[in-house]
Formats: sequence, structure tokens, C-alpha cells
Amino acid sequence: MISVANATARLSAALGDGDAAYLAASALVEADALGLPRFGIDMLTEWKPGLAAPEDGINGPVEWRDCSDNFSPLAVAAATLGIERAAREFGLAAVFLKGVKGFGRLAPFARHLADRGLLAIAGAEGPPFVAPYGGNRPVIGTNPITLGFGTGDDRIVIDMATSTATMADMKTARLTGQPLGEGIAINSQGEPTTVASDVAALLPRGGQIGSLMGLMVEVLAGVAAKGRGDRNGRGVFLIAVDAARMNGVDRLLAELRRDWISAGGYWPRGGAVSPEMELDANFENRLEAHIARITASNPGEGK
Amino acid sequence: MISVANATARLSAALGDGDAAYLAASALVEADALGLPRFGIDMLTEWKPGLAAPEDGINGPVEWRDCSDNFSPLAVAAATLGIERAAREFGLAAVFLKGVKGFGRLAPFARHLADRGLLAIAGAEGPPFVAPYGGNRPVIGTNPITLGFGTGDDRIVIDMATSTATMADMKTARLTGQPLGEGIAINSQGEPTTVASDVAALLPRGGQIGSLMGLMVEVLAGVAAKGRGDRNGRGVFLIAVDAARMNGVDRLLAELRRDWISAGGYWPRGGAVSPEMELDANFENRLEAHIARITASNPGEGK
Repeated sequence: MISVANATARLSAALGDGDAAYLAASALVEADALGLPRFGIDMLTEWKPGLAAPEDGINGPVEWRDCSDNFSPLAVAAATLGIERAAREFGLAAVFLKGVKGFGRLAPFARHLADRGLLAIAGAEGPPFVAPYGGNRPVIGTNPITLGFGTGDDRIVIDMATSTATMADMKTARLTGQPLGEGIAINSQGEPTTVASDVAALLPRGGQIGSLMGLMVEVLAGVAAKGRGDRNGRGVFLIAVDAARMNGVDRLLAELRRDWISAGGYWPRGGAVSPEMELDANFENRLEAHIARITASNPGEGK
Repeated sequence: MISVANATARLSAALGDGDAAYLAASALVEADALGLPRFGIDMLTEWKPGLAAPEDGINGPVEWRDCSDNFSPLAVAAATLGIERAAREFGLAAVFLKGVKGFGRLAPFARHLADRGLLAIAGAEGPPFVAPYGGNRPVIGTNPITLGFGTGDDRIVIDMATSTATMADMKTARLTGQPLGEGIAINSQGEPTTVASDVAALLPRGGQIGSLMGLMVEVLAGVAAKGRGDRNGRGVFLIAVDAARMNGVDRLLAELRRDWISAGGYWPRGGAVSPEMELDANFENRLEAHIARITASNPGEGK
């Protein structure tokens, strides 16, 4: 058993400490704590000795970065901290990343920016698994889009895939042999299927709207960030606006939340866990094995 | 009969000429030419003598503006031209507008930015007509979101409402007495209805994904731009990124378009009409009446 706080501190130290290491460690540990191990510390299998430390500053309102030589959770964390500073300086900042491998969920990075008083929008593209609406072949990724804004109880973190399911769901369905729901996927003939092993493409979530939202994310993260077709990894974008320049928006957000919930709507908070929450021995063993491998290559770290 | 080009030139002159007047005139005339008169020159009924000319420059990467004292199509056009210049200077720019009344469609403004080599994202909120997913009362507007990027044949302009229908559709259905489709709206008891006169709220498009996208637009245009609950008008946001700073994205966009279309997907271009297209006598008469009213109050304009 290890608490979220201790696991995060241990992993952060192994990753070299500092703000980006802490944010990356926190995002990975949180995913395991939320029961989403596919986005959790198993990302550390991609950590290799000799990867470059990501640049930590951003020199203007907008920057393009190639993260092929970085450990991806650290690269996304460093970019998040970079636009946090840049948005405060310029009022607005964005970063477009390419060469990003598995980095976990976008929500913790958007939530970090929201907690620091910024409005954040982010998205990521990936390998083609999702067909266009009305189409018969996969062209884009499950392309999540995320927005984070506000602090405390009123904070909102919208974090959604633009497809009916994620690749993690497919993997689970293949392993368990459970049939998929209707309208989730098509086979290689472009026909509907509920058999996970026959799936050639996922479908967009909600029909045309999910298809166009996925395409929007593809234009931002695949084209503008240049992730599309890049063998070194996927494209990610992050945009942040300094909320300190907007007077009175806290009240508007609180009122929107109240109206939304009282009309029966769901106010998403993007997941977050108590630092005191305990993770089980299996998690602790996996964490220690990852940390041992990292610190063995980085003498002096992880103590 | 009058051509789109002539109608645009006549209206632009009446609105004071200059780039913002031309862009606003072009957006309104185009809506009529596309068969969307509710977003067309009838917006000119909101033009009043004594409205202030909108500011034409934007002084940094991000700006908030109150457009209550401007003619709204001109205000949105001026903001579009402002972020065009600012995005070129800073690489990235955004403007958050409040007090915006009817201004037509977002697509022509996003398309203008795309044509000038920028990636544009825009959205607008409005009075509460749409219920949250699973909810029973209207909380947000039909909240369109728009993306424009690229030039020539590869240009993409995604422009979609986040609700099942627009208020214009409701008005038409009330006038004709035609039943609505299933799953479009609910009555004041929160129950599904197909009777336009019983509609208390529209539903989000595609279920939860449309609801969350509408909420995302509400956070940006309603909260951050402060449109929510403002009696002087709605909130609008525009974000632009300078594509000239991204090498090689033209090829990526062309490849995405080719892949998307060949897999059976729809590549939206946001509507655009030939300048030679002829509009009918009814349109011409309406246009001349609007222009006569405007130039009567603005001696020296509209010649």
C-alpha cells in the first residue's frame, strides 16, 4: 500500500524532480488511482536512459516542438508549464507538439492550468482507428479534446474522446470476448460489427458531430502540430488564456454550473484523487520496479 | 437581379467602406445567396444611426471587447481583421467579444482568416434554448463552433451547431406546422415532443458529446467572453494562429483531405458563393431598402 502523495513524490524524484517531473508523476499515478491503468505508470515502460530533458521555457505566445527525444509525459508536462508562464506574460499562449508517444490523459494537464488561473484547451491525435461519419475506413485517431477552467468547486474539466470507444476499450473487449455495443465499430468491409476481433475502424461519437470534432482535433494536432503520419509519435496542442485578465468570470462560471446542474446536466471535473488515497500492493510493486529501472540508469536520482 | 459582387460592393459602401465593411457585407450577402436569409441582409434591421464604429486594431495577443455600441456584423468583421494582424505579429491571437447581437454565420469570418493563411477557431453562445444531455430545461444556446484552415481546394471550414436544430428551424416549423423529428426537443415537462409550439428546449446534437461541446463553447463565449446573461447581446470568441510559422502543413492538410474523402467522409468548406451568382429581385429590393435607410442617416455614404 502506498498513498497517492507518496507514490507521486517517489516517482517525481526518480524522474529528476522539478515541476515538470512532479506534474508528469502526478498525472500517471492519478490514472492508476482512477482505475485507468492503461494511462498510468505503465507509460514508464517508454522511459529510456539517454532521453533528452524537455525544454522548460516557451519563448513567445506560440511555439512548435518536436518531442521525439523526450519522455512523453515529461514533454507534455514541460509544455504545460511553459504555456502557463507564457499565457501569464502574453495573456494567451499555445504550444504544438509532435513526436509525442503515450503520455496518459490530457485532463490532469488541463486541470493544472485551470488551478493556476488559466483557461486551457488541449487535444491529441493518434494513429488512424476512427472512420469518418458515413465512411468505411479509419482515417483519424480517437482524438480527445479537453477544456479546463475555474478553481475549487466550480472548476470544469471536459475531457472526451471524439469516437464511440477508445483503443483501450477494444483491447479489453478482445481479451474478454465480450460483444461490443451496436454502433461502435465497423469491419474491414465497412459493415457494422459487434465482434472486437473483427473491428477495422471505430465510429465517431454521436455521428456527424463527433466526426467533425475529431476532424477539428486532427487539423489542430495532426496538421498544425504535424503529428499526422509521423512515425515518431502523435501530435498534441495546448492553448491557455490568462483568466486574471477577465474580471468577474468566477461568478459567471459559478452561475453556469448552478444552472447546468439544476437542469439535470453533468458537470465534469476531469477526475482527481485525494493525495491520501491508498494504492494497492500490486501498484506499489510495479511502481518500485519502474523506479528501480530508472534510478539504475540515473545514479543519484530517486533517493 | 443583382450579382453577389455588386450587392456586396453596394452594401459595403453603405456601411462606410473599408475592409471591415466589405467583410461584413460579404458575409451577409453570402448567407442570402446560400438560401439562409435568416443570417443574411435582414441583420441590417439592427443597424441604427449613431452606432459607434468598432475599433479596428488589436493591441496584443488577446483582447476583450464590449460591442454593445457597434453594429454587430461590423464588430465581428473588425475583430476578425484585428486578430488577422495580431496573429501575424505575435504568431497567435484571440479576441473575446460581448454585447454582440445578430451577426449572421461564423463561417465567412473563419474562412476569411483561412484564406489569409491563418488557422481560425471561433464560437458563439446565445440565449438559453438547449438543455444539457439528460436534463429537462434550457441552459445554453445552440452554440456553434467553427474551424477554418487552408487555402484553395484543400481549405476546410467546419461550422456546426452543438444542438439538434437551430432556432431558425424552430421558427420555420412553427410557421409551417410541420412536426419535428424525434429526439430534437422537449416540452416544459422535460418530455420529448415533435410539436414545434410545445418546444421548451432543444436537445444537444449527438447526445453527451454535443452537450459537452455546447458547454465548452459556453465556457469560452459565455464565461470567458462574458456573454452569459448579458442583456446587451451574446458572447463570441475568435482565435487565430499564423500558419506561416508551420512549414509543410499544406501537404499534411491536402493528404488529410484526400484520405478523408477517399474513406467516404464529408470535407466541409463552410459555404461560399461565386461573385457572379445572381440574386433575385426580391433580394435586390430588400437590399436597396436597407441601403436607402442607412445612407439617409449617413449623408455622403453609399454613393
